[in-house]
Amino acid sequence: MNHAFAIGLDFGTNSARALVADCANGREIATATCPYPSGSEGILTERSEPLLARQNPGDYFFALQKCLKTALTKAAKVRGFRRDHVIAMGVDATASTPLPVDGKNRPLASDRRFSKNLAAQAWLWKDHTASAEAAEFTALAASMRPQYLARAGGACSPEWFWAKVWRCRRVAPEVFQAAASWIEISDWIPAVLSGVEDPALAARNICAAGHKAFYAADWGGLPDEEFLRGLDPLLAQLRAGLYAKAVPASECAGRLSKEWARKLGLSAGIPVAAGIIDAHAGALGAGIRPGTLVKILGTSSCDLALLPAGGPVPAIPGACGIVADSVVPGHLTVEAGQPAVGDIFKWYVEELLEGAPALHAELSRVAAQLAPGRSGLLALDWHHGNRSILADSRLSGLFVGLGLHTTRAEMYRALIEASAYGARAILERLRAGGVPIARVICGGGIALKNPLLLQTYADVLGCALEIAACTETCALGAAINAAVVAGPEAGGYDSHESAVAAMTSVRKEKYQPDAGRARRYNEAYALWRELHDAFGGVASGGKNLGDLMKRLLALKER
Amino acid sequence: MNHAFAIGLDFGTNSARALVADCANGREIATATCPYPSGSEGILTERSEPLLARQNPGDYFFALQKCLKTALTKAAKVRGFRRDHVIAMGVDATASTPLPVDGKNRPLASDRRFSKNLAAQAWLWKDHTASAEAAEFTALAASMRPQYLARAGGACSPEWFWAKVWRCRRVAPEVFQAAASWIEISDWIPAVLSGVEDPALAARNICAAGHKAFYAADWGGLPDEEFLRGLDPLLAQLRAGLYAKAVPASECAGRLSKEWARKLGLSAGIPVAAGIIDAHAGALGAGIRPGTLVKILGTSSCDLALLPAGGPVPAIPGACGIVADSVVPGHLTVEAGQPAVGDIFKWYVEELLEGAPALHAELSRVAAQLAPGRSGLLALDWHHGNRSILADSRLSGLFVGLGLHTTRAEMYRALIEASAYGARAILERLRAGGVPIARVICGGGIALKNPLLLQTYADVLGCALEIAACTETCALGAAINAAVVAGPEAGGYDSHESAVAAMTSVRKEKYQPDAGRARRYNEAYALWRELHDAFGGVASGGKNLGDLMKRLLALKER
Repeated sequence: MNHAFAIGLDFGTNSARALVADCANGREIATATCPYPSGSEGILTERSEPLLARQNPGDYFFALQKCLKTALTKAAKVRGFRRDHVIAMGVDATASTPLPVDGKNRPLASDRRFSKNLAAQAWLWKDHTASAEAAEFTALAASMRPQYLARAGGACSPEWFWAKVWRCRRVAPEVFQAAASWIEISDWIPAVLSGVEDPALAARNICAAGHKAFYAADWGGLPDEEFLRGLDPLLAQLRAGLYAKAVPASECAGRLSKEWARKLGLSAGIPVAAGIIDAHAGALGAGIRPGTLVKILGTSSCDLALLPAGGPVPAIPGACGIVADSVVPGHLTVEAGQPAVGDIFKWYVEELLEGAPALHAELSRVAAQLAPGRSGLLALDWHHGNRSILADSRLSGLFVGLGLHTTRAEMYRALIEASAYGARAILERLRAGGVPIARVICGGGIALKNPLLLQTYADVLGCALEIAACTETCALGAAINAAVVAGPEAGGYDSHESAVAAMTSVRKEKYQPDAGRARRYNEAYALWRELHDAFGGVASGGKNLGDLMKRLLALKER
Repeated sequence: MNHAFAIGLDFGTNSARALVADCANGREIATATCPYPSGSEGILTERSEPLLARQNPGDYFFALQKCLKTALTKAAKVRGFRRDHVIAMGVDATASTPLPVDGKNRPLASDRRFSKNLAAQAWLWKDHTASAEAAEFTALAASMRPQYLARAGGACSPEWFWAKVWRCRRVAPEVFQAAASWIEISDWIPAVLSGVEDPALAARNICAAGHKAFYAADWGGLPDEEFLRGLDPLLAQLRAGLYAKAVPASECAGRLSKEWARKLGLSAGIPVAAGIIDAHAGALGAGIRPGTLVKILGTSSCDLALLPAGGPVPAIPGACGIVADSVVPGHLTVEAGQPAVGDIFKWYVEELLEGAPALHAELSRVAAQLAPGRSGLLALDWHHGNRSILADSRLSGLFVGLGLHTTRAEMYRALIEASAYGARAILERLRAGGVPIARVICGGGIALKNPLLLQTYADVLGCALEIAACTETCALGAAINAAVVAGPEAGGYDSHESAVAAMTSVRKEKYQPDAGRARRYNEAYALWRELHDAFGGVASGGKNLGDLMKRLLALKER
C-alpha cells in the first residue's frame, strides 16, 4: 500500500503539466510541463478583436503526451516508483473553456471546414468577446431568475459558458449549427482519455457546471428551457444536447482506454476522475478545508473557501460562485477572484516597458525598498475587469498620483498594492457574508516567485499568509481526485477530506504582516476604497473625489 | 537704415540661445545655443527632495558668452551684417527664477560660504518646494487682499517669487539674512551686462514683477508691508530692499558696459532692454496682438492674450495672471498655462519607458494612426500640477481605461490628448472671461517638432492653429524689445505694435481641424471634463464617476 501513485494532469492557460504524486503523502515523484504549440503562448488571437482568446483543442493532447511522457521517464528513476502502481489519473483545466464538438465527441476544429474558424476552437476562459451576451443574460436573469444571480455574484461574466456559446450562435451561426454539443475541456479531456465517443455520455463535472454554467441540483440542473428560450430559442434547444446531471470529482469520468493506455505507457482500465477547474484543483492541492481561504495566484487569482452544505445558501454579493459539491463533496464552495494578477505585471513589464522577464525581478528589488504610500500612487487593478466584489468585466485599470518624478518601480509597486487592496476587498466581503476564515493559504505560480507581492498582501490583509508546499497545487489537486476515485483499497482515500489531510502541507515559513506597514496600508486602503467605490459605481451619495489627490500626497509626505 | 540688427538673448530652462535678427523684418541672421554646464541638463537637483530645482547663476554668463560668440561668428558670414550695426540687445529668461544677491549685485552663490548651498542658487521656475508657503500666502490674501488673487487665478503658485523667498527664509535663514536683495534672473542679467553694481539700481521688469510677484501699479507696486508682515516680518523688511517701480520692456535696463562690450565683441553703450519672461517674449516673437492667443509650447505651456488697458481689470478665474503693460505696453496681458507639456512626454518616453529620444518620433508615428477615443484611455496631464484653470499645484497625473492590451503608443496619444483637453479648458475659460480670441498662434519647441500634438490640439480646440515662422520666438521677442528701446532713429521701432507687425510672421501651412475627429473629441472632452472636475474638486454636487469607465469603453467601441 505504500507504493500507490496518482497522476494529476493540469491544463493551464499557456501549458499543460503532469505530476506523478505519492498517494501516501502527496510527495512529488516527478513533474513536467509542455507549452501549447499554437498561437501566441498557446493562445489564438485576432488583431482586430483584442478581447478574443481561443485555443487549438489539438494542443491539449499534444502537450499531455509530451509532458506525461517526460514525467514518467523522470519518475522511473525514483526508487520505489513503478508505472503499474499508478492507480488513477485526474484532470483539471481552465474554465469556462467550452469546445464545440460533433456527435462523436470530436472537436469541430478538426473538421476541415472549420479548422481555420476561430469560433470552432476552444473558447479560452479569458476570452471577453461575449460582454453583450453576458449583459443580456444578466438582465433577463435579474427579472426572471434572480436566484441564478444570487449565487453568481450578481452577474453573468462574459467568461462563462452561456455567454460564450450564445456569442458563437450570433457571430458564427455555422459553427453553432454544426455542433452536436459543447463541452468544457475539463470534461472533454477525461472523456477522450476514457474513450467516450458520444458527448451525451461524457461525465460533466459539477465544478465547471456549477461555477460557469449556472448548474445547481436544487433548481434542476442547468438553467431551465423557458429561461433559455427567453434568451434565444436555439439555446433552449441546445440544452437537450448538454447534460441533465453533473458529477463531483469524487466520481469517475471513465477508465483509461486501451488506446490511450498504450500511447501513455500506463495500465488500461485505471480510473480517470471527473474533471475540475484548475484553480479549484489548486485549492485542493493547497489544502482547502473549512476555515481556510485558499488563494490561487497566477495570471489571475481564484479565491476559494468552504461552507458546510445543507443549510440555506447564503447571499454574498461579489462572491462569483457559490456551488455545492464543486471542490470538496459535502461542502459549499464559495468562489471569488481577481481576473488579472500576474497578467497585469506581465502587461506592465513586458508590454508597456518592453522589458525582458528579468526586469520583473529588478523592479521587485527596487520596489521592495519603497515604503507603503511613499510613491503617492494608487492604482486600480481592473485591467481585465473586476470579478469580485463588483462583478463587472467592463471596468478598466487606473493610475492616479503620477508626477514627473514617478519611477517605473513605483508604478510596479502601485500595481502590486492595487492587487493586494483588491484581495482585501474580497476577504472583507467573504467574512461579512459569514464565511469563516482563520487561515489564508496561497498557491499558484506567483505564490512561489513573487515575495514582494506576498509580503504586500500580508501587510494589506493584516494576516499571515501560508504557502502551499507543493509547487504544482493544481496538478496535485487533480491527483487528489485520482486518489479518491481509486479508493482506499487501491492505496487511495475514502474522501476528499482524508486525501487533502494526507497529501497536502504548507511551508514552514509564513509571510507575517509588519505592524507599521499594516497601519500605513490601512490608511491607503481607505483612499483606495473611495476610488474603487467611485469608479465601481457603488459610492454612496455621489462621493466627491475632489481632495483625493491631496490626501494621497499628504500620505506620501508623512 | 536697412542694416540695423538687434540681438535677443533667451535664457531657457536648460540652455541659453542668442539670436541676431534683422530689424527690418525680423529675419534670423544667425542663432546659436549653449546648454548650461551645471547639474543635470543645467538643473541642480537633490535626490531627497524631488520638487527642488535650482540653477548655478554662473551658468547664465558662461552660456551667454559661448552662444553669442558663436552667433556673431556665424552672422559675420552673412552679407550685410556688421557688428557695429547691432543697435541694441534684449534679454528674456525663465520666471519666477529669483536669485539672492549681495549689496554689489553679486550672487550669494559666488561667495565661498554659500557656493555649495542650494538655497543660495537661482530658484528655477519649476522648483515646487514652496507649496506650503504658497498655500499660506493664498490663505492670507484670501482674507486680507482678495484683489491680489483675483488677478492671479485665485492662488499663489509655489513657482512664484514670494513663496520661494519665504521658503528660503524658513529652510535656509542664513542665506536669507545674507541677501541684500533678491532679483529675477531676467533683471539680473541685463543689470550685469549694463554694469549695474547695486541691486537697488537694477531695472526690474514689470513682466516678472506683475506675473510672479503680485506687482501692480494700481495697488502701489509690490504687496504692501502690512500684508507681508502678516506672512512674516522679515518679508516686510525685505520689501524695502526690492523695488518701488517696475518698468516695461520698452525701457532700457542700461547700456552695455565697456567690460561686457569687450567680452562680447560689441559696441559699448548700446541699449540693453529691460527683461521679460521667456514665454512672454515668445508671445512677442510669435506675433501677439489683440484678438490672438499665443501658445508657447515647450516643457510647459504659456498661453498669452491681450486686452486693452484702461478699463476695469476683468476677473477670469483660472487665468494665472492679468497684468498691465507686461508684454505690449498699453495692453493688459492675460496669462494662462499648463505646467507640464513636453515634460510629460519626456517623463513618459525617457523615464518610464527608458527610451532614447528617437522613441518620441516612433511613438508619434504609431499613435498618429489611432482614431480619437479608440484606445479607451483618458489621462489628466497634471504630473506637475494644474496651473489653469484650477490653479492647484498639488494635483497629479492620472490614466484611466487601461487594459491588458493597452499599448505604449496608445498611452502616449492619451497624454497628448490630455494636454489638448487642458488647452481647451483654458481657451473656453478665456473666452468666457471676455478675452477676444480669433486666431491661435503656436510657438516654442514643441510647435516645431510635434505635428501629432498640434493636429490633436487643432482637432480638440476645433480651430486652426498657426505656427510662428521664427524657430526662436523667445529670442526674437527679446530682439523686438531691443529694436523698440533703440528706437526708429537707430533703425528700430517706436512701439511694440509696429515692431511685432514688421518683425514677425507665421508659416503658410496651418493645422486645420478635421471635422470627424473634432466631433469625436467633443464627446471625449465631455468625459474628460467630468474627470477633471471630479479630481479637481470643482464638480458640482458630488458627481458620480460610476459609469465613466463604461462610457469610455462605449466611445472606444463605436
